Amino acid sequence: MEIRKPYLMFLGDAHDQLAVKTAQGVVDWRRDWCLGQLRLEGCKADLGLEDMTIAEAAEAGVKTMIVGTVSPGGVLPDYWVDTIVSALDAGLDVATGLHKRLGSVPAIAEAAKRNGRQLFDVRFSDETFATGRGTKRPGLRLLTVGTDCSVGKKYAALALEAGMRERGLKADFCATGQTGVLISGRGVALDAVVADFISGAAEWLTPANAPDHWDVVEGQGSLFHPSFAGVTLGLLHGSQPDAFVVCHEPTRTKMRNVEHPIPSIQSVIDRTILEGSLTNPDIQCVGIAVNTQALGEDEAQALLKSISQEHGLPATDPVRFGVGPIVDEIVARFGS
Amino acid sequence: MEIRKPYLMFLGDAHDQLAVKTAQGVVDWRRDWCLGQLRLEGCKADLGLEDMTIAEAAEAGVKTMIVGTVSPGGVLPDYWVDTIVSALDAGLDVATGLHKRLGSVPAIAEAAKRNGRQLFDVRFSDETFATGRGTKRPGLRLLTVGTDCSVGKKYAALALEAGMRERGLKADFCATGQTGVLISGRGVALDAVVADFISGAAEWLTPANAPDHWDVVEGQGSLFHPSFAGVTLGLLHGSQPDAFVVCHEPTRTKMRNVEHPIPSIQSVIDRTILEGSLTNPDIQCVGIAVNTQALGEDEAQALLKSISQEHGLPATDPVRFGVGPIVDEIVARFGS
Repeated sequence: MEIRKPYLMFLGDAHDQLAVKTAQGVVDWRRDWCLGQLRLEGCKADLGLEDMTIAEAAEAGVKTMIVGTVSPGGVLPDYWVDTIVSALDAGLDVATGLHKRLGSVPAIAEAAKRNGRQLFDVRFSDETFATGRGTKRPGLRLLTVGTDCSVGKKYAALALEAGMRERGLKADFCATGQTGVLISGRGVALDAVVADFISGAAEWLTPANAPDHWDVVEGQGSLFHPSFAGVTLGLLHGSQPDAFVVCHEPTRTKMRNVEHPIPSIQSVIDRTILEGSLTNPDIQCVGIAVNTQALGEDEAQALLKSISQEHGLPATDPVRFGVGPIVDEIVARFGS
Repeated sequence: MEIRKPYLMFLGDAHDQLAVKTAQGVVDWRRDWCLGQLRLEGCKADLGLEDMTIAEAAEAGVKTMIVGTVSPGGVLPDYWVDTIVSALDAGLDVATGLHKRLGSVPAIAEAAKRNGRQLFDVRFSDETFATGRGTKRPGLRLLTVGTDCSVGKKYAALALEAGMRERGLKADFCATGQTGVLISGRGVALDAVVADFISGAAEWLTPANAPDHWDVVEGQGSLFHPSFAGVTLGLLHGSQPDAFVVCHEPTRTKMRNVEHPIPSIQSVIDRTILEGSLTNPDIQCVGIAVNTQALGEDEAQALLKSISQEHGLPATDPVRFGVGPIVDEIVARFGS
């Protein structure tokens, strides 16, 4: 799956800015790919991009319209279908993270066929995977893991890709969730893969590469989350990371959507090394990414210092203070 | 998914006895449900059942024809389709473990619709699951785990169900693979579930029950198998077993289809307790099931004695020596 660039961001009639979170993620991380936005009447969201019609977007060289918006009611409204058909008629591909396949709407399927255009439903995987082999491959891999779901694993991986590239390292973000796929234009939504092929899909995503090349892999779930630990373990085995970064949200008291307590950072480090060593005996933790959004500046700095000292590892908030200390650690351990 | 009994076993033109392994499993464990077999010209397999035509089977009260045969080339030959259509026309449901959905063959789909009959593709799951919650439910659960894939986890679970029932315990086998589903008439092929719902599917399979009722759950894969450990972990978390039995094949030197060594029985016990305690802190090992098929009688007895002494747990070959010692242990620890 490789989505053609550049993009037109379709916002529909989004009720608020939160409804375009996925689209905002693409703009935050891939501003250069986003030539404009298309908003329907009543749209209350704004990505700060130039407003464009489909004709203007096609004229400007846009290749794909991204539907990165949660629609009212979670379904695809008829008046969005008209816009999607127009985009296909103008020669654009269309990519979405909706729960329903674009091709399941007859008008959209016909328009795609009529124009020879591609539809990307990033929540679904049409790729056929082999089962995982667990054999060591050349190339370096870094995985972000978490004390819980939704603690900044995608953000940390994207920030590390950027920070490592700035430092002259060869690094590529590998998306394992739908937003990540739209941001990077490729990847696989791992939660949608059939269970037998989780580690195989992770191997497919992070194939053999040059010895000094880093795949920076977006983590999923947590080894301690009773809903999703199977996905986390399959991703860990398949991506066989040389290095991992633990992501943590210090104000959370229990795991997302369940009653389980948040595990300690140390137990996540220990368990990740224990399980990860099945496919990479040299796996090591290179840093801790903490989401300090809920804390004041001084409090955040004090917490990071304390976590860093406790674990003997760099600890930072990638959003607030950057990933510099973790990139330093990577360079120190693996070379530049 | 609940397949109606009794069954007619369709063997097609199976090349040899191995091709009807799945059908044989159903006969081995559910002889009473199997009223007859239907063999096409050239069939080289025999389940020792009465040969019946479809008309005779319908007359005898058969409700479902089971296609438990690997077809030549793995596909569904046209001359099998004719027989399947005839079964549907005679008022039978049809269940298979084939890689292709029965309903994807237009003639079969039409015949099912025309006769108002059900098609069961046990390799696929049409059930919608919630994500796992990890909350403790009433009822007792036993899970078979393994040092590898294909070491007798299904057999051990079925033998334990039978042995526990003989001892007066309330015990129900819970199938997690396609053969198990055909044997028990219900269950879910866990390897075919979408990754996010592995533990949720396992919770659905083993719901709240009476405090003295045992779900005896067929295990999948191994926590140490780099292809399938994610499935194993999700099943462990979702089934939240009170007790588990480790299944082992002593002559194997590396894990099935990969280059990884077989883990020790002790490491499987330790890892299962470590990971399983996330959803059931009281999880405990109650025995070891060893496949001694490759060993002589004396050698087998000596090995079992040595394994039992090493781990302080009953060790037996369920096929050769029965599951008595493990049932004793269950009764001793959990009551009768």
